[in-house]
Amino acid sequence: MISTQTFAPVTPAIIDQLKHILGAENVSTAKADVDLHAKDQSQHEAHPAEVVIWPMSGQQTADVLKLANDHHIAVTPWGVGTGLEGNSIPLHGGILMSFERMNQIVEVHADDFQVTVQPGIGHKDLNEKLARYGLFFAPDPGANATVGGMLANNAAGIRTVKYGASKDNVLKMQVVLADGRLIHVGSRSVKQSAGYDLLHLFVGSEGTLGVITEATLKLVPVPQFMSAVLASFSTIASAVETVVAVRGSGLDPAALELVDGAHSKMLSSVDGVELGDQPVVFMEFHAAQEATLAAGLEIVQEICEEMGALWFKSTTDTAERKRLWHARHHSYEIMVRMHPDKQFFINDVAVPISAYPELIGYVEQIRDEHGVTCYMIGHAGDGNIHVEFPFANEAQHQKAMEMNGLIVQKALSLGGTCTGEHGVGIGKAKYLPAEHGEALDVMRDIKQLLDPNGILNPGKIFPESGH
Amino acid sequence: MISTQTFAPVTPAIIDQLKHILGAENVSTAKADVDLHAKDQSQHEAHPAEVVIWPMSGQQTADVLKLANDHHIAVTPWGVGTGLEGNSIPLHGGILMSFERMNQIVEVHADDFQVTVQPGIGHKDLNEKLARYGLFFAPDPGANATVGGMLANNAAGIRTVKYGASKDNVLKMQVVLADGRLIHVGSRSVKQSAGYDLLHLFVGSEGTLGVITEATLKLVPVPQFMSAVLASFSTIASAVETVVAVRGSGLDPAALELVDGAHSKMLSSVDGVELGDQPVVFMEFHAAQEATLAAGLEIVQEICEEMGALWFKSTTDTAERKRLWHARHHSYEIMVRMHPDKQFFINDVAVPISAYPELIGYVEQIRDEHGVTCYMIGHAGDGNIHVEFPFANEAQHQKAMEMNGLIVQKALSLGGTCTGEHGVGIGKAKYLPAEHGEALDVMRDIKQLLDPNGILNPGKIFPESGH
Repeated sequence: MISTQTFAPVTPAIIDQLKHILGAENVSTAKADVDLHAKDQSQHEAHPAEVVIWPMSGQQTADVLKLANDHHIAVTPWGVGTGLEGNSIPLHGGILMSFERMNQIVEVHADDFQVTVQPGIGHKDLNEKLARYGLFFAPDPGANATVGGMLANNAAGIRTVKYGASKDNVLKMQVVLADGRLIHVGSRSVKQSAGYDLLHLFVGSEGTLGVITEATLKLVPVPQFMSAVLASFSTIASAVETVVAVRGSGLDPAALELVDGAHSKMLSSVDGVELGDQPVVFMEFHAAQEATLAAGLEIVQEICEEMGALWFKSTTDTAERKRLWHARHHSYEIMVRMHPDKQFFINDVAVPISAYPELIGYVEQIRDEHGVTCYMIGHAGDGNIHVEFPFANEAQHQKAMEMNGLIVQKALSLGGTCTGEHGVGIGKAKYLPAEHGEALDVMRDIKQLLDPNGILNPGKIFPESGH
Repeated sequence: MISTQTFAPVTPAIIDQLKHILGAENVSTAKADVDLHAKDQSQHEAHPAEVVIWPMSGQQTADVLKLANDHHIAVTPWGVGTGLEGNSIPLHGGILMSFERMNQIVEVHADDFQVTVQPGIGHKDLNEKLARYGLFFAPDPGANATVGGMLANNAAGIRTVKYGASKDNVLKMQVVLADGRLIHVGSRSVKQSAGYDLLHLFVGSEGTLGVITEATLKLVPVPQFMSAVLASFSTIASAVETVVAVRGSGLDPAALELVDGAHSKMLSSVDGVELGDQPVVFMEFHAAQEATLAAGLEIVQEICEEMGALWFKSTTDTAERKRLWHARHHSYEIMVRMHPDKQFFINDVAVPISAYPELIGYVEQIRDEHGVTCYMIGHAGDGNIHVEFPFANEAQHQKAMEMNGLIVQKALSLGGTCTGEHGVGIGKAKYLPAEHGEALDVMRDIKQLLDPNGILNPGKIFPESGH
C-alpha cells in the first residue's frame, strides 16, 4: 500500500529554512524524536520522518506548508499518536509536523457553550480545564487523543450515541491548505447555511486536504445526574434487541455498549469483575433532574426483563456507577494483561443497527470456522463493533487481517461502513472502492484540487493504483 | 446580480430529446407550468424557465443532466417553491427540473429509525406517513417544503435547538453530478469515518454542485410527553438571558423561541391571543416520561422567576399546549392578515447566543433611526433571528433591504452568519466574501471542479464578478 509517489528529500538547506520559520528549538532530526513519531498505536509498521517539527502558530504552519509544497516534500500532521489505522505514520518520510506544542485553550466562550482551542490539546486535558465552567467536550475515543487528531479522523467513542462524533461537535476551524493559504471554515453561529460546508470536508480528511490549526468546539453542560445500568442476556440477539428497544424508547442513552460472551468471560477472570460469561449490555443515562433518571431506570428495567435479562444492575450512585463501568472502561488494559506477550489488532466496522445481530452472528461463525481467539466489544447503540484479535506471530496476524477483510465485506453488504471511527489511514484504503464506488473519484478529484503535489499525509485514504 | 454567463437555448430538438428521456407527459412548455415555477415565496423577481420537466427517477435525472451539460443549458432544481432567498428561481431560463412527481417513500427502515425517500416528498406528508411507526423527521421549516429542497438549502426551523438542522438528519444520498454521473454519498451506518464527507458538501449546496435524487433520513421517536411554556419579560435582555439559562440547565428544550414586544403586540391584536406587548419566550420540551416533564417545568419556572418574568404559563396538556403555541405557529399568517396590501421581506441571520442581545438591541436601534415597522421573531435557542419587514412600495422595499444589509454586517461583526437557515440563493450572495474570505475561493474551485460548465442553478451562491 506504499505510494508510488516520490518526494524531494529534506536537505540541510530545508532544515535551515525550517529553523528560520520555527526557531531551532522546534526542529529536530534527533533519532529519539524521529522514532517517537514513527508509529501510532496500531499494528502498522513504523516509518521514520526525516525531520520532526513543532509549529507554534497557524502562520508558522502556513509558512512550512508553502515551503514543503514549493519543494515537493511530504508533510504528515501528528497529534499524539493514538491513531489505530496508521493515520499519522509518516509513510513517505519528509516532515513530521507535531502539534504537541500548540496545546492551549485560545478562548472559552462559556455563554455560547463553545471553546476555541489549538489542535494539540488532549481532550481529557481540555475537559479538566473546562470543569469549572460546568461544560465539557463530549466525544471520547478512550485515549487522551488531541482535539486536532480527533477532528482529522472524526473520532467518536462511547458517548457518541447521545452527543455525536467529533464532526457533530465542531463549529469552526482555521485550516492551512497545502499551498500555505490560511482559511477559516464554518462559523461560531450554531446555525449556518451560507455556502458550501467546507468545515465537514476537512473534518475526517485525515490531514490529506489541509492541516487544522485551530478549532471552535461545541460544549455541553455537565449532566447533573447520571445513572448506570448493566444487564446480561443469554443470546447476543436478545442483547441487541434490548439495545434497539432502549433507543426506540426515547430515553436518549449517553452510552449503549455491548460485550460478547467471550469478552465478558475474559473480563470476569479478573478480580472484582463479575460479568459472567454471557453478552452484557452497558448503559449510561444523563439527566438534568434526578426524577428523570429514576423514571428512566424503571422503563429500562422493564425492557430488559421483557428481553429475558439473566440479571440486571442499576445505580444512580456515582461510586457504584464507576464500579459497574470499570470493566468496560478498562477492558483494553484487562485484555492486554490477560494476554502477555501478544499484540492486538482492533477491527472497526459499523452497520445500520437492524443489521447488527447478523454482523455479530457472522463474526461468531467465522471465528469458530477459523479457530481464532477474538473478542467483540461494541458501541452497539451506533451499530459499531470492534473485534479485537490478539496475535503473537505473523501467521496469527495474517489470520486476523483475513478475518478483518471478511468482516468489512460483510459490513458493506449490510449497508455499513469499513470504518465507524478509526478512519481509513493505511489499513482501510483498499476497501474504499467497494464502499464508495464512483464517489471515490470525486474524493480523488478534490484531493487533486486542494493538494496538487500530493504532499499532505501521502499514502493515506486512497488505495494506490494497481491495488 | 444576474450572471454574465450565457447558456444555450432550449431548442425544439432538445425538447424532443427531453421527451424521449422523460416521456412527453413529463415535459411542458405551457405558460401555466412555466409561470408556476418562476418564483418562490421570496420577494425576488420571477424568471421564467424555457421548459419545465418532471423526472421520475435518478437515472432520468442523470440522462437530462448529461444532455444539458453537453449542450451548455442551465438547469435549476425545484422542490415545491417555498424558498425565501430565490434559491430555486430559474434566473437563466433553461430547464426547470421539478421533483414534484418523485415524491414517494422508497423504504422505511423502522428498526434503524431511518427512511429512504425521493426528494419531492413534503416533510409534513412524510411525517403523516411515518406516524404509524412512532417516528418522525424532526427538521420543520414551517412550510411543507420538500425533503430535497430542505437538504439542498439545509433548512432548519423551530425544533433545531434539540434535533439539529437538515444537515444533521441525513445519512446518505443519491446525487447526480452535472456530467450525469450518479453517485452515492454517506452511509446508512450512523457512524462513518471512511474518507471525505461528500454528503455534507452536497447538503446546503443549493443544487449548484449536484442534484439530490434520493435521501436516507434519520428519524427520531415521537416523544411520549410534551410540555409548553410561555413567559414574558420587560426587556429583551432578560428574555435572552432566560434563553441562555434554559440551555445551560441541561433541560434540552425542543423549541426555544423569542418574539419581540412589537411582535407580541401585533399578535395580541388578534382575538384569542393574549401575549401582551412585551417580549415573549416560547418553549417546548419533549420527554419519554411524564415525571421528566414535571420536574423540568419546576426548573424552568424557577429560571423564569429569577429572570423577572412578568408572567409564566406552562402545561403538559396537549390541547392547552397547542393553544399556547398557536400564535407562534401562525405568526406569519397573522402578520399577513394584519397588513393587508403589503408584501413581506424576511431577514435571516444568526450569531453565537452570547451576542444575541447586542444583535437584537442593534435591530431596535436602526428600526427607530429609520422609522420603519418591523417585527422580530427568532429561533433564540440557536441565536437565529428573522426580522420581518412589511412593504407596500419600492421605497419601503429598498429601506428593508438597506436595513437587511446593516443587520447582516452586524451579525458578521459578532461572529455570526449572513444566513442561519434560508440559504444564500440570490439575496445573500453579495455577503459571502465578507463572511468567508479566502475560503470562498475554495468554494468556487469546488464549483468549477464539479460543474465546469456552470449549468447547475446558475446565478446562486456566488456573487458575480464586478459585484
